[in-house]
Amino acid sequence: MKKEYIFTPGPTPVPHRVGLSQVRMVHHRTAEFGEILARVLDGLKFVFQTDNEVMLLTSSGTGGMEGAITNCFSQGDKVVVFAGGKFGQRLVELANYFGLDTIEIQHGWGDCADPADLEKALEADPGIKGVFLTQSETSTGVVNDVEAFGRIVKQTDALFLVDAISGLGAVDFRTDEWGVDLAISGSQKGLMTPPGVAFVAVSDKAWKAIDTATLPRYYFCFKAARASQSKSPPQTPYTPAITLVQALDVAIGMLREEGLANVFARHELFARATRAAVEALGLRFVASDHNRANVCTSVWSPEGLKSGDLVKHLRNDYGVSIAGGQGQLKGKIFRLGHVGYFDEFDIVTQVAALELGLKELGVPVEIGAGVSAAMKVLAEG
Amino acid sequence: MKKEYIFTPGPTPVPHRVGLSQVRMVHHRTAEFGEILARVLDGLKFVFQTDNEVMLLTSSGTGGMEGAITNCFSQGDKVVVFAGGKFGQRLVELANYFGLDTIEIQHGWGDCADPADLEKALEADPGIKGVFLTQSETSTGVVNDVEAFGRIVKQTDALFLVDAISGLGAVDFRTDEWGVDLAISGSQKGLMTPPGVAFVAVSDKAWKAIDTATLPRYYFCFKAARASQSKSPPQTPYTPAITLVQALDVAIGMLREEGLANVFARHELFARATRAAVEALGLRFVASDHNRANVCTSVWSPEGLKSGDLVKHLRNDYGVSIAGGQGQLKGKIFRLGHVGYFDEFDIVTQVAALELGLKELGVPVEIGAGVSAAMKVLAEG
Repeated sequence: MKKEYIFTPGPTPVPHRVGLSQVRMVHHRTAEFGEILARVLDGLKFVFQTDNEVMLLTSSGTGGMEGAITNCFSQGDKVVVFAGGKFGQRLVELANYFGLDTIEIQHGWGDCADPADLEKALEADPGIKGVFLTQSETSTGVVNDVEAFGRIVKQTDALFLVDAISGLGAVDFRTDEWGVDLAISGSQKGLMTPPGVAFVAVSDKAWKAIDTATLPRYYFCFKAARASQSKSPPQTPYTPAITLVQALDVAIGMLREEGLANVFARHELFARATRAAVEALGLRFVASDHNRANVCTSVWSPEGLKSGDLVKHLRNDYGVSIAGGQGQLKGKIFRLGHVGYFDEFDIVTQVAALELGLKELGVPVEIGAGVSAAMKVLAEG
Repeated sequence: MKKEYIFTPGPTPVPHRVGLSQVRMVHHRTAEFGEILARVLDGLKFVFQTDNEVMLLTSSGTGGMEGAITNCFSQGDKVVVFAGGKFGQRLVELANYFGLDTIEIQHGWGDCADPADLEKALEADPGIKGVFLTQSETSTGVVNDVEAFGRIVKQTDALFLVDAISGLGAVDFRTDEWGVDLAISGSQKGLMTPPGVAFVAVSDKAWKAIDTATLPRYYFCFKAARASQSKSPPQTPYTPAITLVQALDVAIGMLREEGLANVFARHELFARATRAAVEALGLRFVASDHNRANVCTSVWSPEGLKSGDLVKHLRNDYGVSIAGGQGQLKGKIFRLGHVGYFDEFDIVTQVAALELGLKELGVPVEIGAGVSAAMKVLAEG
């Protein structure tokens, strides 16, 4: 008998009531589904902290990224893209693919993007039409300071596009206050829902750009989405992933009950507890000191241990799913998730499994040291 | 107390065991999900009756259409599109949107596409690169003769693209035997799964076209999908709609158990029973005699009755969802679904609800006449 624990930074654990809400499918042309969709669209504004309309798309988060770019930009548009991890790199790839004139700013994998780099780029070229940033770079365990970048972009004509896929509903994200024109997210991280639905909050500034942007978009057309969503009751241009929308409705209801401030405080506490455990076990963080995310904790695999072997061992022997490294960090790091539906005991369980796994793979660890360190932080929180 | 009946031609009723399979989400990097995905990809080949690889996309069916077009064609390519209904029209819209040189063949809404029209078009212009056809045009209740078109297209260099979204798993569809190069479908019709996943079976001829086609595709890139799917265990380029893939696995298992021949025979019988009921009630079919589909039966709304009022009445008073008209048929017709998870008693219930609804809305019907006529067909089947 092995219980199953999803501790990866996406997909994240799905609360049982969210999972169950998929069983009875409501027809999407009924008044009942209209109410569900209306509540979800309103709930997305709540989690995005925005008055902007949020487009709901049936796709992975990458579909949301593609839509944000193709709706608002034209071939040859000059954009600045921060690429300090696998997901920042995906924004670069998308921008290049669609023929944007991409100024790629590489910051170290594990370091934050630096607002000073943006200032320099904007000074050097006032014709920049867009700035692309990843809020929570889950591949490295870093959260970027979206607010600081927003302050700079606001003073320009450029659109501020932010991948908030793994941060939304876990760490603070103030779409309007921080001046985010295109805020992208997905169902399967902080929103505690299975994957398959993506969202983009679109500002007035972005809507203006849409009028003249010429990149092709059909399935991901925001104007079509807005036209359908503004009907009463709201609809979608194509049959939506009904059961996932139902699940999202329940999950957002849970976030509303808890309150965003409490949600963020919980993530902060659990991240702190996890970091205390990692330090107590004598392991090294990937992210530099002040950059460590409340979404997931990335850790260098101990000398001589391929992180993939640890991931496999925990999955096979304990039913515990943590994540390995991606891209250039593959095999070198492992990542402990604490985003979404996590409680204290999940944090303790994850650290306990890590201790057992490391020991069994021949890494000298003091059994109990990580768990105690985490417990001390949790008890004080 | 009102029970709920989804009798629309999509989304269609979801078997309880399919619905339940969404509750426990399996992490997509586990061996267990690898097995599920492998079984689904293999199962899709079974329902598509093909040896071609089937791309699995997280999107509505329209995303599958967009992918089929953008992966295989280039701006200015000349294509013939049959547009005898809302979904044929969508293919026209997509082809035009992406700058194809579209020869639009309009056939009456309710009539089948005519292979002779294709022969004429091909004779007039040997440079035609693609032929686009809808198998089951759910907006009119017509099923086109894909085989006849395939025989013609096979002799040319053109690619044969077929929207099999509402027909697959309900009426015969032989991808390989009929020479379909791009066969598109979705989860929410004959495959008895909630909406949110689309599929495209891609022939060798189509793969060759992909090498030189230049329309932009990133999220829907088939080469990326194939590269991920051919890993062992198979993967997807972006996080898939995990719970829908799980559901699909169970649903395809049910189709395998029943056997495709039995599945098609069941649909044929239920369609015949429904048509007998419609005739016994003195109502008129939208589709001409030999064109009536086994997927859904489209019926002209009786004089003086807006079909939307009938749809609303059945939904509100009886919990029964049937479909109204779409596009130019909006308000004028209603559609009785019999695609996917239907049994004899669903057919009887649908006809019974129709009789009650019509009577209550002031249409003179002989109560019981439709049900008896359907019963006679069912008893003989």
